[in-house]
Amino acid sequence: MSDVEIVSIETLGERIAAVFRKAGLSPDQARAVARVIAAGERDGCKSHGLYRIEGCLKTLAAGKVVADADPVVHDDGSAVIRVEAGGGFSCLAFERGAPLLAERARSLGLAALVINDCTHFSALWPEVESLTDHGVAALAMCPSYATVAVTGGDRPLLGTNPLAFGWPRPGTAPYVFDFATSVAARGEIELRRRAGETLPEGWAIDAEGRPTTDPTEALAGAMLPFGGHKGSAISTMIELLAGVMIGDLTSTGALDRLGTTTLAPAHGELILAFSPERFAAGRPGDPFARAEALFEAIVGQGARLPSQRRYAARAKAAKDGIALTPAEAAQLRRFETLGLAALG
Amino acid sequence: MSDVEIVSIETLGERIAAVFRKAGLSPDQARAVARVIAAGERDGCKSHGLYRIEGCLKTLAAGKVVADADPVVHDDGSAVIRVEAGGGFSCLAFERGAPLLAERARSLGLAALVINDCTHFSALWPEVESLTDHGVAALAMCPSYATVAVTGGDRPLLGTNPLAFGWPRPGTAPYVFDFATSVAARGEIELRRRAGETLPEGWAIDAEGRPTTDPTEALAGAMLPFGGHKGSAISTMIELLAGVMIGDLTSTGALDRLGTTTLAPAHGELILAFSPERFAAGRPGDPFARAEALFEAIVGQGARLPSQRRYAARAKAAKDGIALTPAEAAQLRRFETLGLAALG
Repeated sequence: MSDVEIVSIETLGERIAAVFRKAGLSPDQARAVARVIAAGERDGCKSHGLYRIEGCLKTLAAGKVVADADPVVHDDGSAVIRVEAGGGFSCLAFERGAPLLAERARSLGLAALVINDCTHFSALWPEVESLTDHGVAALAMCPSYATVAVTGGDRPLLGTNPLAFGWPRPGTAPYVFDFATSVAARGEIELRRRAGETLPEGWAIDAEGRPTTDPTEALAGAMLPFGGHKGSAISTMIELLAGVMIGDLTSTGALDRLGTTTLAPAHGELILAFSPERFAAGRPGDPFARAEALFEAIVGQGARLPSQRRYAARAKAAKDGIALTPAEAAQLRRFETLGLAALG
Repeated sequence: MSDVEIVSIETLGERIAAVFRKAGLSPDQARAVARVIAAGERDGCKSHGLYRIEGCLKTLAAGKVVADADPVVHDDGSAVIRVEAGGGFSCLAFERGAPLLAERARSLGLAALVINDCTHFSALWPEVESLTDHGVAALAMCPSYATVAVTGGDRPLLGTNPLAFGWPRPGTAPYVFDFATSVAARGEIELRRRAGETLPEGWAIDAEGRPTTDPTEALAGAMLPFGGHKGSAISTMIELLAGVMIGDLTSTGALDRLGTTTLAPAHGELILAFSPERFAAGRPGDPFARAEALFEAIVGQGARLPSQRRYAARAKAAKDGIALTPAEAAQLRRFETLGLAALG
């Protein structure tokens, strides 16, 4: 225990928010970004936890995100609610639009939230969970930057294009999945490179478009979509719906604009919300009870529901607090003390 | 040529409709079913072409579909349009609801069509194509009957749960994909069994839930979802949205009710429609032109867009007519002459 610093979820969120305020983010932007980073750490999602602070600060230092953006909600009463993020991080834009999205889904049965002109670094599960908290089901998707080839292609065109879904479960944590539509994350390939390991077949192609199991060649080439041509089609659909259709950048456009994969990319996001009560109205059975029967059948076979590891980490964090390693604690203190200067 | 009977698309549609009228379907039901079967044959989709007539007739003979169902459209002005299929085939129910769905998507930006209480045998691409003809993008999904295990499960729980998407392309055939969320179709496993071949790893589990490459054991066990846990999650989402949420049967419920996988199952369907003009309004760029740039980038890499084989077969059928093999022509004549009695 002497090596580990224990912080509460609340304290961690406040400390992260202070880091971002010191770095120049407006208080609202800082709080919204800190909320999702603290949630990642709380849920044991190291790749979306404290690790993300540095990337966000670098993006800020590079002038690629608007520190004091004030997202504006546009609502014409239709099923499409639009938030202009104004070049800020997506988190605050989502917070501003989410309650209206849930309300519109309840009144119309179905509604969409479009976020435009945001800088995006966060997982999508905090967003679909926020919507399930409002009692609606949600499906979220966005481009990223071009690092993935279509099936049969020879160079990057798609992003890792995450797809996330949430279904509310009264009295317990929601059914949530959130995954990249690439077969693996870029970080996994980098980790294998450092470890001197080869990649499984089907993960990547080299710069000439040939299948490769060499991590270095893969990083110079392109990753492949999950599930072959089916995953490739789903990822292409995400480019169309959450890039082209909403009048925002595709993954190729995002990379062209940014010129690097080391900063958080700018693009938009599409989130659909469904009211199960409205869809099931007048039909036999309660949709929430019927969903529980489906989940019980899954678990009853010994299979797992997605997100259970996150929820277990969350329960532990609520009980015991969040344990920061000495390196994590030291880096957080560096950011707290030095702000952007900590980037060196 | 002497062995082959050439028919026009129109003639084939009329002959199939006559078969279904003779078997007892109402003229509207017969025409709607014939339209999608003729479209399957026209597009070279043998598994959704003339081959389907027998299954539909068997379902009718078994009393599992209402021959003269008159689908009723319910519209409360919201984003959710519901068609009660009344136990008939889904095709006519879709036709009745589709124009209103497209209109509602154009007025609200986004809308959903729910089909309830239908018997379902058709591919989803005719439906998403019908909506792209109206200038809207579409995403369609439905359960089927339980023949697929979730990842980590040991017995069937999910259906092959198709997912289809369409994006309108002015002046040319739409971007369309339509695939089962199982790694393979049940028919493919049956074909490998007959050929004495083994299955690739990852296709199926046996009745004890163990991985198997033996087609006979696979047919007694369960198929697996495409893309591992990601495909399993998407298929589960389809059970939730297009089964539970719309107040209709899940794949398990459909199989329980029917008791066999040899007849067309009864369940519902969910189709979302998006107006690209509405989503892109006020944003830079024309979404249709930007989509073309994406498609050109895909094709420019030597990759294929989905559905191109279908469109090539369609162009050939428009030019040369549809070629029926002697066996196909003979069976069609048997159905024309004998109606349900042809089932023996």
